[in-house]
Amino acid sequence: MAPILLNCMGNDRNTEYIKEQVQVKNPYLDTMEEDILYHFSLSTKTHNLPEMFGDIKFVCVGGSANRMKAFAQFMHNELELPGNPEDIRDICEGTDRYCMFKVGPVLSISHGMGVPSISIMLHELIKLLHHAQCRDVVLFRLGTSGGVGLAPGTVVVTDKAVDYSFQPQFEQVVLGKVITRSTELDEGVASELLQCSSELPNLPAVIGNTMCTHDFYEGQGRLDGALCSFSHEEKLEYLRKAYEAGVRNIEMESTVFAAMCRVCGLKAAVICVTLLNRFDGDQITAPHDVLVEYQQRPQVLVSHFIKKRLGQIV
Amino acid sequence: MAPILLNCMGNDRNTEYIKEQVQVKNPYLDTMEEDILYHFSLSTKTHNLPEMFGDIKFVCVGGSANRMKAFAQFMHNELELPGNPEDIRDICEGTDRYCMFKVGPVLSISHGMGVPSISIMLHELIKLLHHAQCRDVVLFRLGTSGGVGLAPGTVVVTDKAVDYSFQPQFEQVVLGKVITRSTELDEGVASELLQCSSELPNLPAVIGNTMCTHDFYEGQGRLDGALCSFSHEEKLEYLRKAYEAGVRNIEMESTVFAAMCRVCGLKAAVICVTLLNRFDGDQITAPHDVLVEYQQRPQVLVSHFIKKRLGQIV
Repeated sequence: MAPILLNCMGNDRNTEYIKEQVQVKNPYLDTMEEDILYHFSLSTKTHNLPEMFGDIKFVCVGGSANRMKAFAQFMHNELELPGNPEDIRDICEGTDRYCMFKVGPVLSISHGMGVPSISIMLHELIKLLHHAQCRDVVLFRLGTSGGVGLAPGTVVVTDKAVDYSFQPQFEQVVLGKVITRSTELDEGVASELLQCSSELPNLPAVIGNTMCTHDFYEGQGRLDGALCSFSHEEKLEYLRKAYEAGVRNIEMESTVFAAMCRVCGLKAAVICVTLLNRFDGDQITAPHDVLVEYQQRPQVLVSHFIKKRLGQIV
Repeated sequence: MAPILLNCMGNDRNTEYIKEQVQVKNPYLDTMEEDILYHFSLSTKTHNLPEMFGDIKFVCVGGSANRMKAFAQFMHNELELPGNPEDIRDICEGTDRYCMFKVGPVLSISHGMGVPSISIMLHELIKLLHHAQCRDVVLFRLGTSGGVGLAPGTVVVTDKAVDYSFQPQFEQVVLGKVITRSTELDEGVASELLQCSSELPNLPAVIGNTMCTHDFYEGQGRLDGALCSFSHEEKLEYLRKAYEAGVRNIEMESTVFAAMCRVCGLKAAVICVTLLNRFDGDQITAPHDVLVEYQQRPQVLVSHFIKKRLGQIV
């Protein structure tokens, strides 16, 4: 039946019909009378989610609340929306777990640091997009990272999100059992982002693998944590092995982001700037204004992508 | 030699001498010219850490920044310190990763959600306490949790922090290899806390094991996430097994908190209130004012403990 279905997609009008709503993978959800998205301080009973979010096409997530607010204000200007960007309010103001800002078809959300923190946000985001009957949504994680053999300031568009053993997989515990999920991301979106980077000044970008760890110090081979049991040479050897496996940067959220988006059929990309080259050190010593400019690079890149998709740049 | 050393500790004067500074387990740290505590926006070069933090005796950490600010203001009143509690400022105001408030000998810090997020904070906190030459510090994690077979609002003082297979251990990846650390907490502090609870009205408390998971939905057996592949009966079976293994609540930070404190020789306790009984459901449906009162219970308990230790309550 699949080939027949494929044959039906020949013209734009039919293509329009098969653009699917965001899917949850939970048979219980639609039987619930109310769904409280606890960590967003939103609920299907107290909020009209289709009205609030039904037009969302791009969701951008990142660790820091301040940075995701700044991104929302930046997108407001880029999309030339009416009103004062300073007035954009936090939709999740009933809680301090996450911040959420909406600017036109773009949603900007903070997710904190690490896999568990972004995982809670993604569960509630995917449910939100489902309840709001959103269609054709693309998700981006915009972040900071440690570079592996790259000049600081380079933007890495993730090919595969890999774990500490450089495998493109995410281990999820379900009722005490470990299951493994694939962490492959959308190749088309990644290529489109790389093309966008070539159209922008001062935006060095590469496609490479991104290693996701569960801590910032021992797991990433840093010599400057409260605990360190390895030598400088052992650290370098691990980073060299990572480089040989195609790893170009290290952060702390990409595997679960890739895995959950993939399971739910959402197109997704990870775009992180490198703040230092880990072969040269562990501490982030660049001046504040340099770091601020680096952190804007993923935002500028994704903004360009969104404006192209919306036809605001030909 | 150990027995001789022990014999030397017979009187209070000698005991005073062996009260040790907070230890890091990293031979490189004291050779560094500067240590930037990046996620606190503090550094050994730009801040006089012994002057700022040398008198700290109690460190209280919790997920939410708002709650840890409220705790600092509450402690300010409880300790009858001079000045306006509304004026307490965030020591980490240069970053939005964590918030930190100091009230007399008490430090109150937010850590976000999940093991990776609290792990970054703990590395930098332990380094901070070391650089500040703090002595005899007790750490408390004050949190919220899902209860297992307990009435909502019960405070659980953690006996052992256990993983998804109910083992008192934490798996840490170091340079691509998994090592296992013990998660036993200080029995004396836990007993003292339980004694404190019996001296307070409206503070139901138990000592029990706390299961630490890496997500809020699938790992905790919730039926209301974006992904769910198990039945209601399978969920209940997992919770029953947890209960039989002594688990009385589920949260997301206790194992790494216990493991890191133990490695560094810090006395530590985990005190979490239960917001619901997971045998009865998954969603947190209690009214806002009830949840607020529940969340104050660990704060009231730890405040009582601190005041007793300081001799303000006989």
